[in-house]
Amino acid sequence: MIAALLQVVPADRVTAIANVGDDLELHGLHISPDLDTITYTLAGEINPETGWGLRGESWQAMESVRRYGGIDWFGLGDRDIGTHLYRTQRMAEGAQLTNVTAEIATAWTVGIRLLPVTDDRLRTMVTLAEGDDAGREISFQEYFVQRRHDVAVRSVRFEGADKAYPGPEVLAAVENADRIVIAPSNPAVSIDPVLAVRGVRQHLEAARHRSVAVSPIVAGAALKGPAARLMEELGHEPSVVGVARWYAPIAATLVIDEADADLAESVAAEGIQPVVTRTIMSQPGVAASLARVVLEPNGPQP
Amino acid sequence: MIAALLQVVPADRVTAIANVGDDLELHGLHISPDLDTITYTLAGEINPETGWGLRGESWQAMESVRRYGGIDWFGLGDRDIGTHLYRTQRMAEGAQLTNVTAEIATAWTVGIRLLPVTDDRLRTMVTLAEGDDAGREISFQEYFVQRRHDVAVRSVRFEGADKAYPGPEVLAAVENADRIVIAPSNPAVSIDPVLAVRGVRQHLEAARHRSVAVSPIVAGAALKGPAARLMEELGHEPSVVGVARWYAPIAATLVIDEADADLAESVAAEGIQPVVTRTIMSQPGVAASLARVVLEPNGPQP
Repeated sequence: MIAALLQVVPADRVTAIANVGDDLELHGLHISPDLDTITYTLAGEINPETGWGLRGESWQAMESVRRYGGIDWFGLGDRDIGTHLYRTQRMAEGAQLTNVTAEIATAWTVGIRLLPVTDDRLRTMVTLAEGDDAGREISFQEYFVQRRHDVAVRSVRFEGADKAYPGPEVLAAVENADRIVIAPSNPAVSIDPVLAVRGVRQHLEAARHRSVAVSPIVAGAALKGPAARLMEELGHEPSVVGVARWYAPIAATLVIDEADADLAESVAAEGIQPVVTRTIMSQPGVAASLARVVLEPNGPQP
Repeated sequence: MIAALLQVVPADRVTAIANVGDDLELHGLHISPDLDTITYTLAGEINPETGWGLRGESWQAMESVRRYGGIDWFGLGDRDIGTHLYRTQRMAEGAQLTNVTAEIATAWTVGIRLLPVTDDRLRTMVTLAEGDDAGREISFQEYFVQRRHDVAVRSVRFEGADKAYPGPEVLAAVENADRIVIAPSNPAVSIDPVLAVRGVRQHLEAARHRSVAVSPIVAGAALKGPAARLMEELGHEPSVVGVARWYAPIAATLVIDEADADLAESVAAEGIQPVVTRTIMSQPGVAASLARVVLEPNGPQP
C-alpha cells in the first residue's frame, strides 16, 4: 500500500506507522519483520521469491545453526542478519527502535518516514484453540511462521500494551496527517497491535473523518495470510461487513473491492462510508488508481 | 599445540581448558574466539588465510552492517555467525557455556573434551599507556583486533575474576591429568586469565610436578602476537627466562627452543627444569616430536 501511495504522493509527505507486535528476539537478535519488510520493499530489495528478506541472499549462517541443531524455522538470510546485528547492537548501546529504524531506512534511501508505533516492548501473543495445544499461548511468529498459521486460534493478546507508549513522533503524525490510510492488513494481528498502544486508538478516533481503511477481505477471502480465518475464529464475520464493523470507530471510509459491491449497503449500515473500486494490487494499474481513491475517496474536489 | 598432541595421544584422552577472557558481546552475540578457534582448528575447518574463523566463508552480514555504518572491525563471516547465533540462543535459554561448547564441539566431531575455564563472565581488560589514551581501559578485542595490538599497555586486569568459579569439570581435569601442558600462548593475556579463575592457580600449583609449559618466546621474540612486547611493557623480561619466572610456580618443566639453548641455565636458575628442543611447529615434523617431549620431558621412561 505504501508503494502504491508513492506513485501519487512524494515520499517526503508520507509517514508509515508500523506494527512491532510481530517483533521477536531470536539467537540474541532483535528482529523487526514488519519494519524490515517495509524498508526492503521500498528499497526495491525485497526478496521477490519469498516476499520477505533481501534479494541476493545467502544462507550460510542458518546452515551453521542447523549443524548445531539450533532453531531454524525462522529463516534469516546472511544479508538480512546484518540488519539485525546492527539493530541489536544499537539498541544495546541505548538507541531507541525509532532512531535505529530511521538509520536503517536512511541507509536504504527509503524516502518516507517510517515509525515503529512504540519503542517499548509489545508482542502479539496467540492462544491456540484445539487439541493438545488448546489454551497454549505462543508468540506471533511461532503461530505465523513455525505453524504457518495452520492452527485454530482462540484469542489474541498484546503483551506489554499496558506499558507501551507511542514513539516520539507517532501521535503528532496522526494529528497532522491530511489523510490517514489503514492498509489492507490483518485487522486482528497487524492493525489492532498498533491501536493497542496507549493513546493511539483515541487519536485515530479523533481523526476518524480523515481516515480511510482498505479492506483486506475480498469476496470473503483474505488477500493473503490468515485474516479471514482469524476474523472468523475470533467471532467476527469474515467479510467486508465484518471489516466495516471493526474499523467504523476509527475510519470514516472503507474501500472495498468491486467483487463486494453487493455488500456496500451492509457496509454503510455499520456506520462507515463504502467506496467500491478495484483493490487487488497484483493487477496492473490498480495500485496507483487505488492510491488516488484512498487519498480522495469522494473523488477529485472541485 | 592441541593438534600436535593429537598426533601422539588419542583424542578421548585430551582435555583442553580454554581462556574466555577474550570473549565479547557484539551485535547482541556472545562470541568466544578462543573456543571457536580451537574447535574450528581441530575440525580442520579453520580459515587457513586468517587463522581464525571458518574456511569457505562469505561476508554478507558484515557488508550489511557496514551499509548501516555499524561496527565492522571485528570480522564475522556468515558461517561463523551461525556459531554465535546458536551459542547466544542457547545461553539465552539458560544453558551454561560449558554445555554449549560441548554441543558445538560435538557437531564438529572434535574428539577432545573442550572446557571453558569458567561459565561466569570473565573479561580481559587492557589499560593503555601512551598519549591521549594513557590510562584508558579497553577490552581485549579492542586492543588485539581493533588496534592490532599496536599500542603500549600499562596493565592487564581480569574483570569478573573475583566472582568467576571454575566450570564444572575444570578442577577435576587438572587433578586427574597425567600430564598438564601449558601451551605456547601469551602468558599475560591467554594463560593468566585462566589462572585468575578462583582455585585454578592453586590447583595448578598443587599439580606442578605433572605440568610442563612450552615457551611462547623464541630468541626474544613471540611466535605470534604481542607476547614479547606485552611482557616487556608489563615489566617482565621478554625471553625464555622471563617465561620461566612466570611459570615456575605452576610448572616443573619449561620447553624452550634450540635457539635459546644458551639460556637453559638461566631458566634452571628460576626453579624450572629446562628442556631444549625444536618448538616451532610451522616446521614439518616438529609438532609430533614436540608433543612427545611435552608428554615425557625426561625422555622415554624405562
